[in-house]
Amino acid sequence: MLFRQALIRVIRIALDEDIGPGDITTGAALRGDETGIARATAKTEMVVAGIDVFGEVFLTLDPALVFTARQRDGETAGKGDLLAEISGSLASILTAERVALNLFQRMSGIATMTRRYSDAVRGTRAKILDTRKTAPGLRILDKYAVRVGGGHNHRFALYDGILIKDNHIAAAGGIVTAVKRIRERVPHTLKIEIEVKNMTELEEALAAGADAILLDNMGIEEMAQAVHRAGGKVSLEASGNMTLERVREVADTGVDLISVGALTHSVMAADISLNVMQVGGRTS
Amino acid sequence: MLFRQALIRVIRIALDEDIGPGDITTGAALRGDETGIARATAKTEMVVAGIDVFGEVFLTLDPALVFTARQRDGETAGKGDLLAEISGSLASILTAERVALNLFQRMSGIATMTRRYSDAVRGTRAKILDTRKTAPGLRILDKYAVRVGGGHNHRFALYDGILIKDNHIAAAGGIVTAVKRIRERVPHTLKIEIEVKNMTELEEALAAGADAILLDNMGIEEMAQAVHRAGGKVSLEASGNMTLERVREVADTGVDLISVGALTHSVMAADISLNVMQVGGRTS
Amino acid sequence: MLFRQALIRVIRIALDEDIGPGDITTGAALRGDETGIARATAKTEMVVAGIDVFGEVFLTLDPALVFTARQRDGETAGKGDLLAEISGSLASILTAERVALNLFQRMSGIATMTRRYSDAVRGTRAKILDTRKTAPGLRILDKYAVRVGGGHNHRFALYDGILIKDNHIAAAGGIVTAVKRIRERVPHTLKIEIEVKNMTELEEALAAGADAILLDNMGIEEMAQAVHRAGGKVSLEASGNMTLERVREVADTGVDLISVGALTHSVMAADISLNVMQVGGRTS
Amino acid sequence: MLFRQALIRVIRIALDEDIGPGDITTGAALRGDETGIARATAKTEMVVAGIDVFGEVFLTLDPALVFTARQRDGETAGKGDLLAEISGSLASILTAERVALNLFQRMSGIATMTRRYSDAVRGTRAKILDTRKTAPGLRILDKYAVRVGGGHNHRFALYDGILIKDNHIAAAGGIVTAVKRIRERVPHTLKIEIEVKNMTELEEALAAGADAILLDNMGIEEMAQAVHRAGGKVSLEASGNMTLERVREVADTGVDLISVGALTHSVMAADISLNVMQVGGRTS
Amino acid sequence: MLFRQALIRVIRIALDEDIGPGDITTGAALRGDETGIARATAKTEMVVAGIDVFGEVFLTLDPALVFTARQRDGETAGKGDLLAEISGSLASILTAERVALNLFQRMSGIATMTRRYSDAVRGTRAKILDTRKTAPGLRILDKYAVRVGGGHNHRFALYDGILIKDNHIAAAGGIVTAVKRIRERVPHTLKIEIEVKNMTELEEALAAGADAILLDNMGIEEMAQAVHRAGGKVSLEASGNMTLERVREVADTGVDLISVGALTHSVMAADISLNVMQVGGRTS
Amino acid sequence: MLFRQALIRVIRIALDEDIGPGDITTGAALRGDETGIARATAKTEMVVAGIDVFGEVFLTLDPALVFTARQRDGETAGKGDLLAEISGSLASILTAERVALNLFQRMSGIATMTRRYSDAVRGTRAKILDTRKTAPGLRILDKYAVRVGGGHNHRFALYDGILIKDNHIAAAGGIVTAVKRIRERVPHTLKIEIEVKNMTELEEALAAGADAILLDNMGIEEMAQAVHRAGGKVSLEASGNMTLERVREVADTGVDLISVGALTHSVMAADISLNVMQVGGRTS
Repeated sequence: MLFRQALIRVIRIALDEDIGPGDITTGAALRGDETGIARATAKTEMVVAGIDVFGEVFLTLDPALVFTARQRDGETAGKGDLLAEISGSLASILTAERVALNLFQRMSGIATMTRRYSDAVRGTRAKILDTRKTAPGLRILDKYAVRVGGGHNHRFALYDGILIKDNHIAAAGGIVTAVKRIRERVPHTLKIEIEVKNMTELEEALAAGADAILLDNMGIEEMAQAVHRAGGKVSLEASGNMTLERVREVADTGVDLISVGALTHSVMAADISLNVMQVGGRTS
Repeated sequence: MLFRQALIRVIRIALDEDIGPGDITTGAALRGDETGIARATAKTEMVVAGIDVFGEVFLTLDPALVFTARQRDGETAGKGDLLAEISGSLASILTAERVALNLFQRMSGIATMTRRYSDAVRGTRAKILDTRKTAPGLRILDKYAVRVGGGHNHRFALYDGILIKDNHIAAAGGIVTAVKRIRERVPHTLKIEIEVKNMTELEEALAAGADAILLDNMGIEEMAQAVHRAGGKVSLEASGNMTLERVREVADTGVDLISVGALTHSVMAADISLNVMQVGGRTS
Repeated sequence: MLFRQALIRVIRIALDEDIGPGDITTGAALRGDETGIARATAKTEMVVAGIDVFGEVFLTLDPALVFTARQRDGETAGKGDLLAEISGSLASILTAERVALNLFQRMSGIATMTRRYSDAVRGTRAKILDTRKTAPGLRILDKYAVRVGGGHNHRFALYDGILIKDNHIAAAGGIVTAVKRIRERVPHTLKIEIEVKNMTELEEALAAGADAILLDNMGIEEMAQAVHRAGGKVSLEASGNMTLERVREVADTGVDLISVGALTHSVMAADISLNVMQVGGRTS
Repeated sequence: MLFRQALIRVIRIALDEDIGPGDITTGAALRGDETGIARATAKTEMVVAGIDVFGEVFLTLDPALVFTARQRDGETAGKGDLLAEISGSLASILTAERVALNLFQRMSGIATMTRRYSDAVRGTRAKILDTRKTAPGLRILDKYAVRVGGGHNHRFALYDGILIKDNHIAAAGGIVTAVKRIRERVPHTLKIEIEVKNMTELEEALAAGADAILLDNMGIEEMAQAVHRAGGKVSLEASGNMTLERVREVADTGVDLISVGALTHSVMAADISLNVMQVGGRTS
Repeated sequence: MLFRQALIRVIRIALDEDIGPGDITTGAALRGDETGIARATAKTEMVVAGIDVFGEVFLTLDPALVFTARQRDGETAGKGDLLAEISGSLASILTAERVALNLFQRMSGIATMTRRYSDAVRGTRAKILDTRKTAPGLRILDKYAVRVGGGHNHRFALYDGILIKDNHIAAAGGIVTAVKRIRERVPHTLKIEIEVKNMTELEEALAAGADAILLDNMGIEEMAQAVHRAGGKVSLEASGNMTLERVREVADTGVDLISVGALTHSVMAADISLNVMQVGGRTS
Repeated sequence: MLFRQALIRVIRIALDEDIGPGDITTGAALRGDETGIARATAKTEMVVAGIDVFGEVFLTLDPALVFTARQRDGETAGKGDLLAEISGSLASILTAERVALNLFQRMSGIATMTRRYSDAVRGTRAKILDTRKTAPGLRILDKYAVRVGGGHNHRFALYDGILIKDNHIAAAGGIVTAVKRIRERVPHTLKIEIEVKNMTELEEALAAGADAILLDNMGIEEMAQAVHRAGGKVSLEASGNMTLERVREVADTGVDLISVGALTHSVMAADISLNVMQVGGRTS
């Protein structure tokens, strides 16, 4: 589901950061040939996301470990539910544990929060979107977790989507020039989205032929007005201060998309524990 | 203050992730020679952290930009306070903006929360510590931000500190064996910390000659008892569910250290905006 | 115009490939302190592309060299025209020469050929497009050169544009399923292009709501028919065997886009020579 | 036949360039568990080169794919001939397709053209040589393809062969100084080749003790004269404008080597298609 | 025992350095399908160290080779003793040979010399320590070999141990300031070691609360005096000119630790040969 | 003199290995703005090698430092001689010190030993050669240091020189086959060297047309006989157990080249100290 080469690169950087020349506690306290099994358990209710990433960390450190997922991404796990098991060298399991949990807890935290937003807008036409406000280096995982939680992805980066903000318009000397240049220069596979702050700018964006329009920090009433004006001809994206408390009200205005930076810039890690039990004395 | 080579590596990964082959909106909407100035402003009260990292992102992308910090790390900025200015190529500023903000907002968010914890324990002997529960790839920044916020760093990674957990003890076949092996094998420059869950284990850890003891998920009363028993001979670290509400009570037991995973695993990004104004038509 | 970090990476790989541990001829035959000036000259008529890349190679190897472009990208240089000058350490110039020329000649070759295609369709509505059939590792340069030559870029890679081919349709079990899934899952910033081989498939693609349609290996007549049927509601891209001889006829059918793999998969390098003259005996 | 570590590095760069964070069309249009088989077929007559590289791309992306070569490097495939089969996950096959073909088509294109040159000089003593005018980053593949086509490799790079050009001589202050310094400084495992433009320079090169002499842009007559003068004591390499039309005539002068930059700087990609058929619904 | 990701990185750099685009002798002289067996033999008495690293080099180059260790790290091999066998592709074995031996001979050389030092202090309380004077890039292997030889590791690097030298004290403006700052700023998991040159500085270090004290270039008598003064309360490390001739005398003063830079900065490679025998004509 | 890109890569790996996330002692003990000057001094007589590498380490860590070499590579420094000065941030100097010294001491150690060998054969025709028995990752520096000491380089790696050993001959099925294949397949820029163990093999190598012959572990008499037999037609290289005691006697046999593995596999580091003095309180 994720491009494996990109995933392995993230995992290698993370393992390297945490292990460097070696795990001195595990390396010194154990003989090295102890084997066992570890169980990952949910300590609160959560939407599971990144269970394969979790397993991949252990296998990247030690391909001889055996990883078995007990839940799938997107499932809701309750407090105490078994999520996954890892068996093999205890030293390997203990050394990989923290990196594996750091990624898994972040991803499940993102999915869990996204699910709350998706649930809040259920029944409306609005989709919950992420943004580029992700943890640097982890975007591929952050955005995947949003999808698992029922959200949708906005553009991945600066290279795969066009979003003309007020700064671009100012620098270009007007919306008409900006859009004209973009039409001339960018691949035909890309739509053009324009950020607007009020109804006047909305009119300009419509006139310029925008495919989508981002309503930046508008009030509920103004958003409703924008929906009415646009009449379904372009996608409307609401953005700015989209809290869980407020999101339903926004969705009810009829906007198509609601982008929520907090999904990835202010993640609350899901609580997952790993318990290890020794079962044997020598790795195969 | 940070090892520059490590910092630049993080920034390059982040820029590459966000820009890849190019920023298509900026590249297409602008001529390319527009110049201007951008101002970063605090949108809520915050402890500033990472202002140099913020600047370094712009300079890494375009060494011809001029960056001027208007606050220093550790200072408290109020809503509306100017944090920094960047001047030069508008295209460069717009392209670097998101990565620069993502790092700066995360770091200031960490420092701001850490400051709250430090303030909460003021007047006690307790220091607030971070953990290894950081965003993979960003630990060097996460831990720096904790220091800026008045917290202290626990070990950086698995290679620079010893922490014997119950899993290590179980795998080693007992605390005595684990400590004996570690004393024999690890550099003399490292102290030995042992995790305990109750008073019985505390006694064993003291008998084994621990330099520091981590009290894992103990109640307030039991922590106080542990402080009394240890009598100042070893450092005591309280850990597990250290919420802002509870941390003062914990500190009042007399523990030396309180480690808080949430400082880095559940960061709330500080709110910072960047406003760009065009001032000229051609870069020097 | 190009993301510098990506460009420098390409240049470093290229220099490393050609120099490895060192240029033994230059290192042994010269004292090392000889200085001089080198002039790059067009040996046939060409569209200049990559002159900054050419210079960047020299400066990456030796930042003390001085590079002066005498033409700009997009200009037409005639046989014998001076393109650029490099002055400084002769050893550095001689060592960087081949890599610099390899990149510059390829890029100018691409631009020159693209210009011929653009000229061939002048006056029609058709734009000349590139493809993903580029030299692995050099796509960012190949595609830039196409723009310099008056062509336009198709999607950069698999991550920034949607093109549903027959294989995708077959694997998905039909065009309806494929488009439905894609609408649900991909960012709203992307258009949907569908490849079709005949009028029946064209109808299906239109019915499925394609934003653009690729006409694969159709005959002139059938393309004209497709243009008529589409009636300007979607972009039509002609593809397959688009030789210079045939491209005008294709453009005259009224298609919007003509993609030409040969622009980048079968490049004829532009002929550029570098002549070096010693002028001094010691580098500053 | 190729150093695997170097090959894998090239493939990883190429896959990363084309896939980045993910193949959005395939990722969205397919369920992900579809399986099938793909067949690579020659669309014109060609010398096969890089069939293992072609397979390695698929296996690097997804080690669970099964690749079966149906031709070997160096064999001539006719239009419609089956070249190779890949079976397994359709999503993996579709995602790897373009990179695999880009490398295979370039390599077979080089081998096919090299074969034409080799055939043209058959019966003479002349060997066809490549140059360092390769696509940056792909030299190891370009030069391997030349060998497959019956050509021979000149030095790989600046570090494994000595070729004294006029610029070196000028900078060194004369051929005698240049050769003397080189003899003193470079490993005894390397021969010394000197570039000359006319008979006078040829005499100097012979007097200086060259092991090989490159005849740069000489006319046929002059080359014949050089062959006569050298009398078999040194290797003679003809270079400069060695077109397919002219190469036989050059070979007939009796030179030992003919180096052809166009083999790698102006490649015409071989035409190869990949057809995918779904065969099952779930990957093993 | 070593963090595999770090080990593989070292091996890849080493193979790349020695093989680059390819092993031309082996590639040209062999058909490529020859198989055989190679035996590594000790040519003088040595302590074996790095036998797994030795094997890993062959397997990194060619995973199809079969490696069998005949000795374990830490064992003493006599002249002529068989150390390991490798079987499979002869071309792979010949190409990997030099890198594999370079690492194995260095590591066994370090272990052999360390063993001599350990033997020399047997019966005293002193442990033999290494330093950071290792071959850049190979520290993880150098320090592992010291442990194999019966030595102990000092801190791995600048990040995992504190050693306050006279330069730090001077720059900080006194030992009291330096220690105070360090206590405030570094993780509680680290001890504080201070370098002293004489008894006066020793007193200051003790007063400052050092956990360990490095006696720099002291005479035997002064070291004995220091041991007496410290009274077992802190670890004492003797350093500076610790030759094999002198080390016993130093150990007899009662110091706890003796650090020896020469163990890793002036390694005498162990003498190991690899003999290859062809046994078959075709790789499986 | 060294390819800078390769040098910087070595230095970055070394700095990263030693500093990782940061130099905790320096970072904590100093304020950070202290400035000073450091002087590198020879503690025994040595041939200076790598003085620019030494400086480059400091500048790579902190480009604001000022480095001044007081000796040039190849000069002999006596005990107490000033080698170089570095001024600027004391924190930067202290952090870079160990890596800078590790490289400089190794290189000067190699040059010093090589000088002894060169001196020993002065007046004979023999040149002292290095081998591929270098510290993995440091070959470019090791081999440069040999040149500085008056030695000469053998091939750099497996890719830039041909040396047919007995294993190659056995695997190829005879010297004739091996040489024939090599002549056919390798670039004409390379000579062919063959290893022989006795006069019979010498005859075969001469008959096969070797350009150079390596006399492996021959006795003095046999070497003299080989020199007589070869009669100056091929280069003769003596190898195996070439100690400083024995090397003159070997040179007196008339061989052209003597290769000495110990120059780089058993380096004795030159003794160099760095003394730092604080001079100011604040970096500019």
